[in-house]
Amino acid sequence: MGDAYNRIAAGDVGRIAALSDGVFAVAVTLLVLDIHAPERADIHSEAELLAALAALAPRALTWVLSVMTLGIFWVGQQTQLNQLERADRDFTWASYLFLAAITALPFSTRVFADFFQFRIAIALYWVNILLCGATIYLTWAVATRRRLLRADSSPDTDRAIRRRIGVAQLFYFLGALIGLAEPLAGVAFIIALQLNYAVAPLRSWRPPAAG
Amino acid sequence: MGDAYNRIAAGDVGRIAALSDGVFAVAVTLLVLDIHAPERADIHSEAELLAALAALAPRALTWVLSVMTLGIFWVGQQTQLNQLERADRDFTWASYLFLAAITALPFSTRVFADFFQFRIAIALYWVNILLCGATIYLTWAVATRRRLLRADSSPDTDRAIRRRIGVAQLFYFLGALIGLAEPLAGVAFIIALQLNYAVAPLRSWRPPAAG
Amino acid sequence: MGDAYNRIAAGDVGRIAALSDGVFAVAVTLLVLDIHAPERADIHSEAELLAALAALAPRALTWVLSVMTLGIFWVGQQTQLNQLERADRDFTWASYLFLAAITALPFSTRVFADFFQFRIAIALYWVNILLCGATIYLTWAVATRRRLLRADSSPDTDRAIRRRIGVAQLFYFLGALIGLAEPLAGVAFIIALQLNYAVAPLRSWRPPAAG
Amino acid sequence: MGDAYNRIAAGDVGRIAALSDGVFAVAVTLLVLDIHAPERADIHSEAELLAALAALAPRALTWVLSVMTLGIFWVGQQTQLNQLERADRDFTWASYLFLAAITALPFSTRVFADFFQFRIAIALYWVNILLCGATIYLTWAVATRRRLLRADSSPDTDRAIRRRIGVAQLFYFLGALIGLAEPLAGVAFIIALQLNYAVAPLRSWRPPAAG
Repeated sequence: MGDAYNRIAAGDVGRIAALSDGVFAVAVTLLVLDIHAPERADIHSEAELLAALAALAPRALTWVLSVMTLGIFWVGQQTQLNQLERADRDFTWASYLFLAAITALPFSTRVFADFFQFRIAIALYWVNILLCGATIYLTWAVATRRRLLRADSSPDTDRAIRRRIGVAQLFYFLGALIGLAEPLAGVAFIIALQLNYAVAPLRSWRPPAAG
Repeated sequence: MGDAYNRIAAGDVGRIAALSDGVFAVAVTLLVLDIHAPERADIHSEAELLAALAALAPRALTWVLSVMTLGIFWVGQQTQLNQLERADRDFTWASYLFLAAITALPFSTRVFADFFQFRIAIALYWVNILLCGATIYLTWAVATRRRLLRADSSPDTDRAIRRRIGVAQLFYFLGALIGLAEPLAGVAFIIALQLNYAVAPLRSWRPPAAG
Repeated sequence: MGDAYNRIAAGDVGRIAALSDGVFAVAVTLLVLDIHAPERADIHSEAELLAALAALAPRALTWVLSVMTLGIFWVGQQTQLNQLERADRDFTWASYLFLAAITALPFSTRVFADFFQFRIAIALYWVNILLCGATIYLTWAVATRRRLLRADSSPDTDRAIRRRIGVAQLFYFLGALIGLAEPLAGVAFIIALQLNYAVAPLRSWRPPAAG
Repeated sequence: MGDAYNRIAAGDVGRIAALSDGVFAVAVTLLVLDIHAPERADIHSEAELLAALAALAPRALTWVLSVMTLGIFWVGQQTQLNQLERADRDFTWASYLFLAAITALPFSTRVFADFFQFRIAIALYWVNILLCGATIYLTWAVATRRRLLRADSSPDTDRAIRRRIGVAQLFYFLGALIGLAEPLAGVAFIIALQLNYAVAPLRSWRPPAAG
């Protein structure tokens, strides 16, 4: 059923990029809504306001964590789409599954922020990250298998992208293991790791190669 | 009134695509907000957290359902827009009506998730899906009648798109009927159906025809 | 101060269109959040659910009203942007003011829906519509005064756009006057008016002129 | 680790613009949600509704403030992106940090609106503005250092952009100092300043130079 339809369905890289930018934009902007501002009725002095804001520190920490996670996956997906010549229906659906996993992050982040002393919260957060990783790997596998890549996309690129996802997931898994033993250490490990991903390239600070 | 205005009004396929991507992105990201994370005050142990998360299963099920429904309509609309050479005011408004029906889905999904033991909730959900189907059919009818299609868009494409919408609505109607008799069976039927739509093409996994 | 800066600032029609599509997409998707689904604890039978849903009718009516209002302004702004060759800093800020007025609509709609028996609610809603109209008129005035239009944009287009905004605001004003005397009649008048704007072109249903 | 990956990662100016437009669109549309409409149960007359709406004036003031702040940073970032020939991974991450600072504005605005009689609220708001300024300066520094600018981008442009950010931050700092002494005066000072930024160019109202 629908074979004629499947041949014409979807296939627009630009639309996938636009939906993705929309999902990431909404998700990253909504994250801050989980940091509830202190209630006016509870605050009667500078000291109380300062204390109320300081009490938000754990939420702020998971906010930083989630903002960076979203950024890493956004950059990762962008890198993949840049390699594409075109999309097809399979790739579109694989990308959509990836975005669905991304939209679940605000939920698992909230559970993680509220209950990081419990292993189940850490496991849930890690499962969500794993799903994001698995689906972004799937999109790349579909892209290569269905020959959607640009002609100038090299096998090195293919290897670099696959290795990148694998290594990142390995570190997330390690972070989850550490977190099961010592929650704060797990969070700190993952944030340090993500800072390395995001900031590392800034260290080199060399003029780019020509072209 | 406004005849001169109507000739110049709207007519930008890119803007319709951009608004659509925005609406779908917001809708799909907001869906997860309906899965309320457990309250910190209610949870005192791993077991209680696990129980609280398990209690969210029906919500998670309707979340999956709605994410897939949005995905199917997003792919369907994208397929139509790909066939267009240009848009005009009628097409723009028909597309806008379709998007309005889409924005209602989070509401009818919530009612469905909370009250799926009641026939009215199932009927409401089905009416919303029907409205989405009717308006996306309308956009296509406008596109063909107003000759907005690309020159290389074949009659086969026209038939495939119309049949696709008709068959999908037939199945949704069947799912609603099953749901009226046995709610969970109706949900299961629709999810199975949607997985078939989304995943089916992945089975074939053959290199695409050249070009 | 900043004269050198002002010459290079902003000026990208595509960015204005993208921000606009984002604002309209978020606004139209958020509108449905004001229709609160019935609470599970309050509903014990089909009849109670039906009654609870029927009680949402006034909210649904203002939802329809606001969805159409957003649609009309979105089409109107799109029509303007289509006429532009380029943008500059003034046009960008005028467009931004227009979008700010649009983002206030969910608030004044909510007040209107809850308090349409009070004249102040009707006046507030009308002031918001008036601000949207005034700012969209301002964007067009800036576009013509700063010579941002495409070379093929005719004086007829200029007249059609100005007359359109003026006539629409006249009708909104009339609707507000009627609403002050008889709220439901005012709402009915405005909805009928908007349906005429949106649906009227569909009546003609003729093949477009060549080109 | 990941050197091969870093060379291919990100680098699409259009994606950065699209994510930015999405973030600004969501942020500016969400701001109005902080102006809570009066509750139906509390209002029994025109006079009570008028009083309830008048009581929202401080919120409306900070809403205006935040809408303008977002507008100024959106125009500022757009101005930078217009100068770019291409992006790279460093620029993408610097832009993402800027957007993260922007997404925090609704939170610090809310705290500011509720507690502007307390110095800590003003300091928090100012720190957020400072972070936005520092990160947008960082993106420009990365763009120039990594030679991402268009060939026709002049040193004048570079100076104008750097001076602009510096001067604006100086004024925000001044506004914060005034606000510490006299909160309302600080808000008034910043709003006046922002109106000058946004509206000033409208005064000149001269036809643009050819080209």
